[in-house]
Amino acid sequence: MPSQFTMTRRVAFSETDLAGIVHFANFYRYMEDAEHAFYRSLGFSVHPSEAEIGWPRVKASCDFRLPLRFEEEFEVQVLVAEVRSKAVRYRFHIWKNEPRALAAVGEMVVVCVNLTGEKMQAVAIPDFWKSQLEPAAPDLLDNAQ
Amino acid sequence: MPSQFTMTRRVAFSETDLAGIVHFANFYRYMEDAEHAFYRSLGFSVHPSEAEIGWPRVKASCDFRLPLRFEEEFEVQVLVAEVRSKAVRYRFHIWKNEPRALAAVGEMVVVCVNLTGEKMQAVAIPDFWKSQLEPAAPDLLDNAQ
Amino acid sequence: MPSQFTMTRRVAFSETDLAGIVHFANFYRYMEDAEHAFYRSLGFSVHPSEAEIGWPRVKASCDFRLPLRFEEEFEVQVLVAEVRSKAVRYRFHIWKNEPRALAAVGEMVVVCVNLTGEKMQAVAIPDFWKSQLEPAAPDLLDNAQ
Amino acid sequence: MPSQFTMTRRVAFSETDLAGIVHFANFYRYMEDAEHAFYRSLGFSVHPSEAEIGWPRVKASCDFRLPLRFEEEFEVQVLVAEVRSKAVRYRFHIWKNEPRALAAVGEMVVVCVNLTGEKMQAVAIPDFWKSQLEPAAPDLLDNAQ
Repeated sequence: MPSQFTMTRRVAFSETDLAGIVHFANFYRYMEDAEHAFYRSLGFSVHPSEAEIGWPRVKASCDFRLPLRFEEEFEVQVLVAEVRSKAVRYRFHIWKNEPRALAAVGEMVVVCVNLTGEKMQAVAIPDFWKSQLEPAAPDLLDNAQ
Repeated sequence: MPSQFTMTRRVAFSETDLAGIVHFANFYRYMEDAEHAFYRSLGFSVHPSEAEIGWPRVKASCDFRLPLRFEEEFEVQVLVAEVRSKAVRYRFHIWKNEPRALAAVGEMVVVCVNLTGEKMQAVAIPDFWKSQLEPAAPDLLDNAQ
Repeated sequence: MPSQFTMTRRVAFSETDLAGIVHFANFYRYMEDAEHAFYRSLGFSVHPSEAEIGWPRVKASCDFRLPLRFEEEFEVQVLVAEVRSKAVRYRFHIWKNEPRALAAVGEMVVVCVNLTGEKMQAVAIPDFWKSQLEPAAPDLLDNAQ
Repeated sequence: MPSQFTMTRRVAFSETDLAGIVHFANFYRYMEDAEHAFYRSLGFSVHPSEAEIGWPRVKASCDFRLPLRFEEEFEVQVLVAEVRSKAVRYRFHIWKNEPRALAAVGEMVVVCVNLTGEKMQAVAIPDFWKSQLEPAAPDLLDNAQ
């Protein structure tokens, strides 16, 4: 039962803005990409084509500490912070590689919803899914402080 | 039967890149936005929620002549260049406003497809749709030269 | 001394994702766009081409309550929540128009930095800038609750 | 003197649209990313922080043949199609991996400009740069047909 995963990425030209750094909205994409890579590492897709459940975000926040620049390599560490009956809370640490430094700390709460009905409605997280997730140890979550 | 439409827009911060100008990939978004605004001006949506047909792009090109900068106001003129049995070809002129100058000239070919089957398949453009479109006069298309 | 501003917008096709709704990362773009439109409404640009100061985001968060869909019109209300010596905190209420309902509530903290040096460094907000901003009344901030 | 390079990528959630496929404007990002990865593979950056030259796009086109879907792995093959005195023309083949099939064929013309002056002005491609590029054999360019 893993509780964390790390994805390595490089800043694309189109992700920068006129200030010469990654536009802040892209950090949320990086976090989501790491979440999805985490599930692929477990052997399944967060959104298979025949999906009956989906995972809309109900909350996302990020503290931006250091800018990322074009072609810079960085790591996105996703940690399972909390597993509720219908929701999962993730913590994200985004690390610059040279020199190693924390660029951003984020959080996202995603809710399990039924996609088969007319309206998205929160449902209990399926057991097979829940069994894959273990909350990270508190000191891991604070690793970034 | 209209054959053109003009949308006015302003460059957003997130659309710029580290070179201080609009990232070129966003011009294709501007063109699509103008196409969709054109249909709204005719009183219907290019993709209503109960849509049975869709309009994937099969070809898109753009000549970039002058850069657009943050907060600059510009116009996107969409012209119906050709109406085929299953496809429409649009021409786009993107104009800087101060001073007036042509920033880009683009083209897109979109195909009418059936969304109800398993696979997207090209179908004849519905009559009610076709009746809304009239190819622009050739001199209009060349207006930008 | 204004303390709020409202921008009206419509969802673009490219802002949606495979779930058929606006991808959550775009809400942060909407918030930033409203902030910049607020300053234009005051007669100046948040980032003129000869800018000596910039406004990087140090924190941004958003609660997502209702999805936005393609071509849906919505409002982004930006409120000045707090003016510190070197930073401004904004609150954002994103409203669906039909029927009127709160789609999202966000916050951003932006810091005033000097762009002329080698490194971005926080500096005191210039007086002319500060004089334009008045924190919104607390009940306005809670309007969305 | 290499004349081609292949980058492997996977479709991100935020790159899809409500039609359930990659939004077409993202293909232009994929092409640019492959171009930049090509230069990294040669040991240098297309845009180092102290850059005196830049490479704005003056033309970009793409034929879309098959859609790409969420989490699908694909390859972007960049080929040097032509090296002019002040410009380079690239051809791109975007391949689906399972089953192997051509998803898109694109072209981009980029111009070498001087970044140190007030205005971007086309200049001769530096020798060290030109010496790295060799036009691909014609049959390679047609490989995709």
